Amino acid sequence: MKEFQLIESFFTGRAQSRKDVVIGIGDDCAIVTPAVNKSIAISCDTLVENVHFFPDMPAKDLGYKSLAVNLSDLASMGAEPAWMTLALTLPEVDEQWLADFSEGLFEIAEYYGVALIGGDTTRGPRSITVTINGQVPQDTGLTRSGANNGDWIYVTGTLGDSALGLDILRGKVNLENADRDYLIGRHYRPTPRVLAGQSLRMLASSAIDISDGIMSDLQHIIKGSQVGAVINVECLPLSDELKRSVDLETALSYALTGGEDYELLFTVPESQKGALEMALVETGVRFTQIGQICTGGQLKLLQDNQPFEPSNLGFEHF
Amino acid sequence: MKEFQLIESFFTGRAQSRKDVVIGIGDDCAIVTPAVNKSIAISCDTLVENVHFFPDMPAKDLGYKSLAVNLSDLASMGAEPAWMTLALTLPEVDEQWLADFSEGLFEIAEYYGVALIGGDTTRGPRSITVTINGQVPQDTGLTRSGANNGDWIYVTGTLGDSALGLDILRGKVNLENADRDYLIGRHYRPTPRVLAGQSLRMLASSAIDISDGIMSDLQHIIKGSQVGAVINVECLPLSDELKRSVDLETALSYALTGGEDYELLFTVPESQKGALEMALVETGVRFTQIGQICTGGQLKLLQDNQPFEPSNLGFEHF
Repeated sequence: MKEFQLIESFFTGRAQSRKDVVIGIGDDCAIVTPAVNKSIAISCDTLVENVHFFPDMPAKDLGYKSLAVNLSDLASMGAEPAWMTLALTLPEVDEQWLADFSEGLFEIAEYYGVALIGGDTTRGPRSITVTINGQVPQDTGLTRSGANNGDWIYVTGTLGDSALGLDILRGKVNLENADRDYLIGRHYRPTPRVLAGQSLRMLASSAIDISDGIMSDLQHIIKGSQVGAVINVECLPLSDELKRSVDLETALSYALTGGEDYELLFTVPESQKGALEMALVETGVRFTQIGQICTGGQLKLLQDNQPFEPSNLGFEHF
Repeated sequence: MKEFQLIESFFTGRAQSRKDVVIGIGDDCAIVTPAVNKSIAISCDTLVENVHFFPDMPAKDLGYKSLAVNLSDLASMGAEPAWMTLALTLPEVDEQWLADFSEGLFEIAEYYGVALIGGDTTRGPRSITVTINGQVPQDTGLTRSGANNGDWIYVTGTLGDSALGLDILRGKVNLENADRDYLIGRHYRPTPRVLAGQSLRMLASSAIDISDGIMSDLQHIIKGSQVGAVINVECLPLSDELKRSVDLETALSYALTGGEDYELLFTVPESQKGALEMALVETGVRFTQIGQICTGGQLKLLQDNQPFEPSNLGFEHF
């Protein structure tokens, strides 16, 4: 057990300090004091070796991603990041791996002002569970269930990059240039749209983060809001790196069905469109209108107003 | 992935409802609204198969224990249980196992009024991470660091039962009677001292829950509070089942060094002794004074005022 106390030394004392943390790492529980009139947003995600990441994934990127995917959940609710716990299960104590993992984790934790307040370190097959806590003014949290007929559908950033990055790592796609690094980087280090999410509060009618691809994640809004949706595939934002690396049909398939972009997908009523676009411009995050909510419970894809059938890439989500 | 949505059906909709849960399972985050003037206590524990439990541990007991050990952390801070997330990693979807596990989990969750508000289900080697959230009036949380010279040392319940239960499961001790079931039951289903913990607020000077045995856990109070301690081993509370099953010397060793009792170990200044004993009597939980805080940074064991050396059982913590 001594050995596992060593693990804790990589995390204790390096945690971001926050005034609202009354007791941090080191007692039976952490104690935090939320701001007045705020609700707490809570989410957790587990990454398992060989299931969610390859054994050779750089530990620094894995530390970064473990928190990034959780921050993305907070972003989609419009919450501000605050506190996290880390449950780390490792087969052995590898000091270099721990130094790298904790460096990546604290890099993103510090950027977003997240305090690591506790956790558990155990021996076993490698996996990481982060539970994130954020704060959101009461009754302003964004959900999947508020979209209405006529609302415009938007996404942040570009789509499909992470899925192509994964296919490069898998050896399904061969690429030997700077685009390769960019695409793998999008898979290893997704950017949680934390500020963009906060700027959507009181403006967007629904929001979700894109973890399984927009065709899949838009279904959650369709079901949650009991609406239908039309996507104009010619509007899908594609990176130059994606467009240069595969043909357009394949690029559109990555954009529609590829997972792990961790961009925000959200809907906005016509009346809020101007205010929302102005708010987003201030965050500096790219955003694109890609379709519209309709009635009928279906998701329809159009390309230049003609029905569009995505080619079956057989994209294999991890 | 469809298969893993099935897992969620065992947990969604069965969760305890609480008025302070604004959004429960099913969106990107849960949203909860803490009570006014309360702080949040947060803790997480991971149980890994073959490390923290045997593969043949009944799933119902495992579900129960996964939450019980976390509730014990809340108890030691004096917090009231509120919300939990569950990260469940399973090698395959076994419906009977899931039905049993969720039954045990909800049995204890409902008893203590804990709402399951979210989580993650993933494929991989079996492990369970529960992150628990409790509420505690601001500035009343109990810690390990408040003990002072002269304070009395107490424990709840009886000590050593869980460790003997584990040794029975391991085949190191042979027992074929009703005591066997009792002792294994104490290992599988520890009782988190939630009410007792709350009654210690503002009265106890320090508290911790006993997960590694009192000799080890008392060291945390000694270090945290920069004090010493004397334990009178003849005062240690032993169950009849433990005393009937092993000789007294062995029983004392289990009580001193056995892990996973999940009783509370706490200190009380002389001035609060009467008030605290009255408060504890109301909870119906057994409690025993076992020693006193002193100066000097050491833990001393006395038996009838003579130095006591515990026999080395070679107790192997999981």
